[in-house]
Amino acid sequence: MGAAPLSPRVVEQLTAIVGADKFSTDPADLQTFGRDWTRAFPPAPSAIVFPRSIEQVQALVRLANAEGLALVPSGGRTGLSGGAVATRGELIVAFDYLNKILDFDPIDRSVTCQAGVITEQLQQFAEQQGLYYPVDFASSGSSQIGGNIATNAGGIKVIRYGMTRDWVAGLKVVTGSGEILELNRGLLKNNAGYDLRQLFIGGEGTLGFIVEATMRLARPPVELTALVLGVDRFAQIMDVLNAFQAKMDLTAFEFFSEKALVKVVEHSGLQRPFETAANYYALLEFENINDDTEAQALALFEHCVEQGWVLDGVMSQSVEQLQNLWRLREDISETLSRWTPYKNDIATIISKVPPFIDEVDALVQREYPEFEIVWFGHIGDGNVHLNILKPDALSVPDFHHRCHRVSQWVFEIVQRYGGSVSAEHGVGLLKKDYLRYGRSAEEIALMKQIKRVFDPNGVMNPGKIFD
Amino acid sequence: MGAAPLSPRVVEQLTAIVGADKFSTDPADLQTFGRDWTRAFPPAPSAIVFPRSIEQVQALVRLANAEGLALVPSGGRTGLSGGAVATRGELIVAFDYLNKILDFDPIDRSVTCQAGVITEQLQQFAEQQGLYYPVDFASSGSSQIGGNIATNAGGIKVIRYGMTRDWVAGLKVVTGSGEILELNRGLLKNNAGYDLRQLFIGGEGTLGFIVEATMRLARPPVELTALVLGVDRFAQIMDVLNAFQAKMDLTAFEFFSEKALVKVVEHSGLQRPFETAANYYALLEFENINDDTEAQALALFEHCVEQGWVLDGVMSQSVEQLQNLWRLREDISETLSRWTPYKNDIATIISKVPPFIDEVDALVQREYPEFEIVWFGHIGDGNVHLNILKPDALSVPDFHHRCHRVSQWVFEIVQRYGGSVSAEHGVGLLKKDYLRYGRSAEEIALMKQIKRVFDPNGVMNPGKIFD
Repeated sequence: MGAAPLSPRVVEQLTAIVGADKFSTDPADLQTFGRDWTRAFPPAPSAIVFPRSIEQVQALVRLANAEGLALVPSGGRTGLSGGAVATRGELIVAFDYLNKILDFDPIDRSVTCQAGVITEQLQQFAEQQGLYYPVDFASSGSSQIGGNIATNAGGIKVIRYGMTRDWVAGLKVVTGSGEILELNRGLLKNNAGYDLRQLFIGGEGTLGFIVEATMRLARPPVELTALVLGVDRFAQIMDVLNAFQAKMDLTAFEFFSEKALVKVVEHSGLQRPFETAANYYALLEFENINDDTEAQALALFEHCVEQGWVLDGVMSQSVEQLQNLWRLREDISETLSRWTPYKNDIATIISKVPPFIDEVDALVQREYPEFEIVWFGHIGDGNVHLNILKPDALSVPDFHHRCHRVSQWVFEIVQRYGGSVSAEHGVGLLKKDYLRYGRSAEEIALMKQIKRVFDPNGVMNPGKIFD
Repeated sequence: MGAAPLSPRVVEQLTAIVGADKFSTDPADLQTFGRDWTRAFPPAPSAIVFPRSIEQVQALVRLANAEGLALVPSGGRTGLSGGAVATRGELIVAFDYLNKILDFDPIDRSVTCQAGVITEQLQQFAEQQGLYYPVDFASSGSSQIGGNIATNAGGIKVIRYGMTRDWVAGLKVVTGSGEILELNRGLLKNNAGYDLRQLFIGGEGTLGFIVEATMRLARPPVELTALVLGVDRFAQIMDVLNAFQAKMDLTAFEFFSEKALVKVVEHSGLQRPFETAANYYALLEFENINDDTEAQALALFEHCVEQGWVLDGVMSQSVEQLQNLWRLREDISETLSRWTPYKNDIATIISKVPPFIDEVDALVQREYPEFEIVWFGHIGDGNVHLNILKPDALSVPDFHHRCHRVSQWVFEIVQRYGGSVSAEHGVGLLKKDYLRYGRSAEEIALMKQIKRVFDPNGVMNPGKIFD
């Protein structure tokens, strides 16, 4: 299916706005910019524009309103829910040339970025200032700040530092009506009316496009130490979490299954953390804030062994060991990509995680006896990634068809547990049919009305989150 | 001006919903429940109802829609912006009987409260569980959780723990249409659609009433130590802040002027922190996380003295001294109440605070040569309270009239600095004429449209925040 071509008049107006060299209908570009990491949606944009100023973004939105164009924002396209894909002839607004760090203040500990700044660029900039941008995840080398905010990106340090939402001190957005809003302007405290900034965070570009953001930075962590602990039963991971959290402030608490470990070790050539094979592994990390911290961690480890929760464990003794232990967790996604996995990004409150996982696991074991199931995730946040691996013999469409059928039952469990159908990946196209398992009909109706307030003509990323 | 009486038919329906013993038109009750701590707005409610269940709140909202009643939510009525006052015959919905703690989970570290739970009750409950509810302020003995959330209350620990917003894991609300929404249900991670919870936080009851909240709790701080430091010029407070924040995680950084100190010492009988009289004082607090912490704080103190920023200082050596140093700051509001002060609760980004304060101070010194001006506030958050004391000879209306005139110029400075016209007190009635100095016309228009989405008939706290 080809994309609907733009009329010559519209093309003329678009090139007048961004310049002819920042407008593309090159088929390779359309392929690249029309899709994200989901790979499930065939890209079919009509064209791509690369604005270089806020005024250009505003002009594009006004033109979209006048001409009835549908706009899709494009950042690093590392999304996992099809939030930034263009499958129906949309015009793509790519933020690649709005990629400057505009301002930094060491006293405010804040940095103002254009939307197209790469996450890693911000992380490195912060480091150069002796500070720290703590939101981190596997795609930080390509994802852009605007996209991070639009999807409220999470990652591997949420237990300590929260989500992207917690680091947004100010936003400049262009709404669907083409208005420029400057929301919160970097203030730490501002109780003057509704906090509209919060709607754009996690709004997936459906209300307006983020063009600039003021991000807070943190004090860098002092020396970090990681522990990897092997446990027999899933519930014991939670016992370990509770034991550690009662005494220490953790910077991370992740988990993965033996199956994930076997595949990562095979793929990466890394060593296993220890000889003992356990069903599950917890990776936890803490700041070595004083001489007692390591001793305390060791005492907690021993306590967990005595309680019969932990079979074996290892603690990093150097930065290199720390990094190697982290790779056991962080390389999972890349390792699994070879099996084009069907991902579920689900969450519940932490105390309900063990029975929740048990139910979901029993369901998928029963329904997918021939599929490999790999569990891993941010268990300290109650967020687990259920990955179903595609057997080589099965076609992608057939595989997805099988997975969709069971997804509904997975989400029924999520609903029963009051959980989230998308803990950190957003809704996009991939999850919108399942939104009702995590949000009530009243909530969805209100969201649609809010969409109309900001985007009355429905030009901003239409069809994402809901129809 | 008396309140418009309710028709017998409406009274009958109200008493049918809440019971005759939970309906009052007693004149003393109307006086008490119709006002907040501002004292600027003569109370004139038509009646008060005390619902005892969410279903009763829902029935009241539905009745309000059917009969065209205006509802005002009433919590602890400790507000400082007239957000919960009833001046035009509104029906007051008081949450005093929805005051139970419903659920607690040590693993989730969360507690579910009805809206009428007193802040201090939650703080004490947390303490009994070995945990900590960190949002704290002078009115915590009377303010209710529902009101804290509706005004996104801040207080004295924001620099470390954030505002009330940061502790709300879930909300149950009744919207202006009478729908019950369960928002976020305690989840740590949930990127499934717009985070509507954020609109009700700081929404001042204009979109719906909060009936239940799931609040997160924190690990309690270890031993706390406070320093009070005297400085000559305001800008030096910021130098001290920057020096300490570069090395330590502070739990508080407050300030007050010599005039504030003199009045508190006189009123409370407390000792001055040290002999030296300085123009301004910084109160900072930190957790004694290890043996080096105090030494580090002392070294920073010495550095500040060497730099010529600090004239004198004192560090608490016991819990009693810690508490006495805190009282120098915390007793200011109560001490000043005898002068019925005109309060401004303004903020800017931290790096701009010194020139901002200089401009505002020059303005008020010029315009109020005969008034006493007392500065104090949460300077670590960029938030200062400008208090203008009423001379005994002047009547309250005359005094307010004089203050209103200058307020506009104060807010023009706030606007020029991109600041907030209400950093933590909310807008209510008191600040709504000034909202435009902190929010654009487009933002205010959007807020009004959002109000209509949740409250189409305008029954929820009408006339607050905006007309």
